[in-house]
Amino acid sequence: MTTGDDAAVEPVRDYFMGLQDRIVDALEAIDGQARFRREQFDAPEGGTARPRVLADGQHVEKAAVQFTHSVGAKLPPAATATRPELAERPFQATAISMIVHPRNPYAPTTHMNLRYFHVDMPQEPFWYFGGGFDLTPYYGFEDDARHWHATARSACPDAATYHRLKAACDEYFYLPHRKECRGIGGLFFDDWRQGGFGASFGFVRAVGDAFLDAYVPILQRRVPTPYGERERQWQLVRRGRYAEFNLVWDRGTKYGLQSGRRIESVLASMPPLCAWAYDHHPEPGSPEDKLLTAFLPPRDWLA
Amino acid sequence: MTTGDDAAVEPVRDYFMGLQDRIVDALEAIDGQARFRREQFDAPEGGTARPRVLADGQHVEKAAVQFTHSVGAKLPPAATATRPELAERPFQATAISMIVHPRNPYAPTTHMNLRYFHVDMPQEPFWYFGGGFDLTPYYGFEDDARHWHATARSACPDAATYHRLKAACDEYFYLPHRKECRGIGGLFFDDWRQGGFGASFGFVRAVGDAFLDAYVPILQRRVPTPYGERERQWQLVRRGRYAEFNLVWDRGTKYGLQSGRRIESVLASMPPLCAWAYDHHPEPGSPEDKLLTAFLPPRDWLA
Repeated sequence: MTTGDDAAVEPVRDYFMGLQDRIVDALEAIDGQARFRREQFDAPEGGTARPRVLADGQHVEKAAVQFTHSVGAKLPPAATATRPELAERPFQATAISMIVHPRNPYAPTTHMNLRYFHVDMPQEPFWYFGGGFDLTPYYGFEDDARHWHATARSACPDAATYHRLKAACDEYFYLPHRKECRGIGGLFFDDWRQGGFGASFGFVRAVGDAFLDAYVPILQRRVPTPYGERERQWQLVRRGRYAEFNLVWDRGTKYGLQSGRRIESVLASMPPLCAWAYDHHPEPGSPEDKLLTAFLPPRDWLA
Repeated sequence: MTTGDDAAVEPVRDYFMGLQDRIVDALEAIDGQARFRREQFDAPEGGTARPRVLADGQHVEKAAVQFTHSVGAKLPPAATATRPELAERPFQATAISMIVHPRNPYAPTTHMNLRYFHVDMPQEPFWYFGGGFDLTPYYGFEDDARHWHATARSACPDAATYHRLKAACDEYFYLPHRKECRGIGGLFFDDWRQGGFGASFGFVRAVGDAFLDAYVPILQRRVPTPYGERERQWQLVRRGRYAEFNLVWDRGTKYGLQSGRRIESVLASMPPLCAWAYDHHPEPGSPEDKLLTAFLPPRDWLA
């Protein structure tokens, strides 16, 4: 440890590690066959990465649930360009980042991320939380969308906060070159210090706990649905959009690709299989078309 | 037409259109079943796009052979930042851009692009050519690599030019985040005005003509090779690298995604199907491993 204020970092780190365990257990239970590959990489200067990846399950085609805790002796100049007072200070960062690509096209892909950044300072530490979760269905179900957003709402201190973070999520997970949202959104927040450390950490725990309540029932409900080649092909094309978002627009992936971080961890979220079909448009009025016209354009799912 | 000097643009445009026809005919003949979808989009201000895409052939899983001719009343400010003398001048640009994704994993993917940019100026026009071609095998064959590069060499005026453009190709088609070349390279050039218009256009025609001589024999030789699930899986994983290069690093794709050009044309080069497998490494000494160790690291194939 190179920072003194472990009183703040330790409980966050422990919560993220515990959440990783709970998510891994829940996904293995749902899959019923495949197991996560469990790895651990300890950095010589302190810090740990715990990537866990499941591949080729009967229901979970691929899932990556990654925990990281980074410890640095001093912040790099690029990280402090807009905050010169942080320059060369020791820092810690800890995060959980996860994605699920179900096999069944009726079950949605999901992504969740929570992170905490902490810099010890002479007076008081500088810190913030960030994160959120979002859902990417291939076929739209009103029940799923309402349940997803109601659970997201329940993690927020009030309705105004939910609507603000929901709007931020719609804005972030957007493909400008397609003029299309990646999915039906959820919550997205950054630079979060609202109410001080205790209140902020409480909010982050509420989001983390809500994630499983939001996703598991949807996944359980959709994996038994029969499907055929048509649904599979649509899922593969839509996963291509997911790959486009991650590689072209996602700030975390872009940073990871440019920073020389372990590439298999950076790209663990990529779809296991995806397709690009030239000028592919679903038939108007079809369930595939309904995803594009009735689910992806931002909507108030709690109205 | 908004520029006066059609004497320069017309023969280039006609050569590119003719080359598009020749490539389309050659690929349809090799496939023997599938046909290219032929489209034409004429811009109201002049200029034409002729996308031609083939999907789901017996041998060609996907191919895109695109011709474009753009006519503009004045260059946008971003295009003339480093050349203020060109600001607000009328311009023309014409290009052929193509990619082939064969179905058989023993047959390599290829990419070729040739382009001409022309600005009328009070004294004499400003212009340049750019382009090249490169090969992306999934399994390495020394014969193929030597034939490919010998044909590339034959398009160049001398050995020094070949080696320079071959080095530029290796440098351009490189994935920094993987520390890996996309394929075994070929030729790459830009801002090409060497010897004046006549000599430059002659060189570009030599490159265009050489492309078919370089690729067709390799494709014909490899498509009958029997293959199974192992080779297909490797091809899909390697195609994921191709997608990474195009979406993350390729300047043309990046420009296309940000400029609002027709997205289906910009992404027509994307693989029809590709995979991301976590931490996937071929067995040392296997044919898959040999691609990585003996073919992708830049080599002098004519030595």
